[in-house]
Amino acid sequence: MHANQTLPQGVQPGEISFVLGHPDRQALPIEALHEAAMLALEEPLRPLEYGPEGGDPELLAFLRLWHRQREGLDLARNQAMLIAGATQGVDLVARLLLAPGETVLVESPTYKDSLLIFRDQHCKLHGVKMTPEGIRPSDFETAIQDLTAQGERPRLFYTIPNFQNPTGWSTSLARRKTILKIARRHGILILEDDVYREIAFGAEPPASYFALAGGEGVIRLGSFSKTLAPGFRLGWLLAAPAIIERIQACGTAQMGGGANPFSAAVVAAYCRTAHWEDHIQRLRSIYRTRCETALAALARHMPAGVEWTRPQGGFFLWITLPESMETANLQDRFAVRGVRVAPGAQFCTPPEAGVRCFRLAFSFASLDQLKEGIRLIGEALAEG
Amino acid sequence: MHANQTLPQGVQPGEISFVLGHPDRQALPIEALHEAAMLALEEPLRPLEYGPEGGDPELLAFLRLWHRQREGLDLARNQAMLIAGATQGVDLVARLLLAPGETVLVESPTYKDSLLIFRDQHCKLHGVKMTPEGIRPSDFETAIQDLTAQGERPRLFYTIPNFQNPTGWSTSLARRKTILKIARRHGILILEDDVYREIAFGAEPPASYFALAGGEGVIRLGSFSKTLAPGFRLGWLLAAPAIIERIQACGTAQMGGGANPFSAAVVAAYCRTAHWEDHIQRLRSIYRTRCETALAALARHMPAGVEWTRPQGGFFLWITLPESMETANLQDRFAVRGVRVAPGAQFCTPPEAGVRCFRLAFSFASLDQLKEGIRLIGEALAEG
Repeated sequence: MHANQTLPQGVQPGEISFVLGHPDRQALPIEALHEAAMLALEEPLRPLEYGPEGGDPELLAFLRLWHRQREGLDLARNQAMLIAGATQGVDLVARLLLAPGETVLVESPTYKDSLLIFRDQHCKLHGVKMTPEGIRPSDFETAIQDLTAQGERPRLFYTIPNFQNPTGWSTSLARRKTILKIARRHGILILEDDVYREIAFGAEPPASYFALAGGEGVIRLGSFSKTLAPGFRLGWLLAAPAIIERIQACGTAQMGGGANPFSAAVVAAYCRTAHWEDHIQRLRSIYRTRCETALAALARHMPAGVEWTRPQGGFFLWITLPESMETANLQDRFAVRGVRVAPGAQFCTPPEAGVRCFRLAFSFASLDQLKEGIRLIGEALAEG
Repeated sequence: MHANQTLPQGVQPGEISFVLGHPDRQALPIEALHEAAMLALEEPLRPLEYGPEGGDPELLAFLRLWHRQREGLDLARNQAMLIAGATQGVDLVARLLLAPGETVLVESPTYKDSLLIFRDQHCKLHGVKMTPEGIRPSDFETAIQDLTAQGERPRLFYTIPNFQNPTGWSTSLARRKTILKIARRHGILILEDDVYREIAFGAEPPASYFALAGGEGVIRLGSFSKTLAPGFRLGWLLAAPAIIERIQACGTAQMGGGANPFSAAVVAAYCRTAHWEDHIQRLRSIYRTRCETALAALARHMPAGVEWTRPQGGFFLWITLPESMETANLQDRFAVRGVRVAPGAQFCTPPEAGVRCFRLAFSFASLDQLKEGIRLIGEALAEG
């Protein structure tokens, strides 16, 4: 693929890894980012000093403009702050807005590292089954009622509404509206992890929970990691002013001098000069081709009984094996062929729900690797 | 001072602020950092992609070399990781190694934002009085015994052993050794926040708790914020391998792709080429002059009965008013003169211990502002 480049951590030479949800290296706008770095350094103090707790003001202004132009969403100054990637957003919410022992409703499957963050914070997790249109509102309500009956009032619903990690599925507009109503009725905060929104292969995604809710009762996370480059560790958090205020008053924010001023100054310079629209179109085309390549290879090589999702965006698809098979039992057969996937149990709540599944990231491995790796997976499965 | 430059957040135009513990702008090696940025971008993927959870390997190798050369401290690979500033170190320790409700022993006074982080994490705080040689080992042991008698076994001791924020005091080698023994006997982990170590005006600081303990039972935090530039948000954490492993296995670390790869690549390039020794000597001279200027102005302008510390390094000194005065009652008199200090109560546990005190940061305001601001403080105090 990129023969002269170092492999990312966790990828062995010669191995085909579908584990990492890293951006395609060709999708990183290296030249433009270098120019942005030069531009940012012309104003020498801004990248080097502590900044305001909310983050770089120019970049925040750009983000407000961005949300207005692309989604018609008007954000007040005190509804947005920069964070060190969506990671830090999940982290801050888990730790400042939840008490240890409180219950979080999650899609099952969902992004495994968010589950880890909630667990690190001693939260209980309760999974609601994902479907191609998102979780069913009736399942959501039943879960709330069951938990409440057990004396465990859930406090937060964590969702990835667009091109979900790991399934690639999106929650329909109708379901968003109904789920929002149910959440409101029960006083449940929604944490909307929306980092894949721009990676849409076809139609634009529906309005966000945050937009539908008029900014109340929903915290929305965005990120430059998927669209620009993960190395900047920069994202943003949208929420009601009282929540933004609570987060900025926390010790970590008070001490930290805002989300990385050095990265933020460079990204702000990129945003000042770059052609986002062209860049986003290019990204969409890159990942659409990758996804189509993966889907074609799956259609060709998967034995009967294997099912997979058909994402309309994002980095991932989700594969479910026939009832007789378990991913854990196949890892050796995959390993011997030099191919790796992310086993499904770690994404599911409870984990048992994912034993016949695995996640396939189509974002990073080369197109040739996608074809060959999926062929090898098919071969491994066909061993029966 | 730097007329054409933007003021940092929280500083009003025309105001003399001794609140901010920011580095002197003249101490930022701007030219060398620009060159480092150019150099880092020659290897385009490294600054832009997700990195290993432990952080940039070259920078970690440099830090191991640094500790060996400067302190004779040999670090294994699995004893060090990069973090997003010492901030994130306190944050990770508070949240992964303490259970909510557990008690943390702190110096009183100590850095107020660390107190906030422990409070955010629902920890109880118990202050042990600071003295010019650090806390008294006998006070430390009494505190542990009293807490234990109340059924509150303390789990962690948070200390800033060198040029403490806010007092400027350092803990003597003898006390470090005794405190370490006591901590061990009671199974108390020491969190050593050592971000001012290099800013020594005279003699080199004594061996760290981490070195004295052979790396067991002590977590040590370092930072590039005071020596290089806070905008990078980069520091490091030294600990026993099991603790490093626990931290790197947490959700935030797993999801985050290591402490800012973009910043880390630039700082690594700086370390590859820069003359650290010259730079550190220059820093020491800058802050020594600042401190001497502040001390001379204090000697000249403070009314009888006012006491202040005489730091041998760092960014701060601590002022104690006569018994008849309280800082809170003086804020209006300071404000009318356009001078600001950090009131003492927020640094103390309990806060009442600090009502007659305030912190004066001599690191950022210009030398002229130091002289004039301290004269104005003296004038305000003399009003009686």
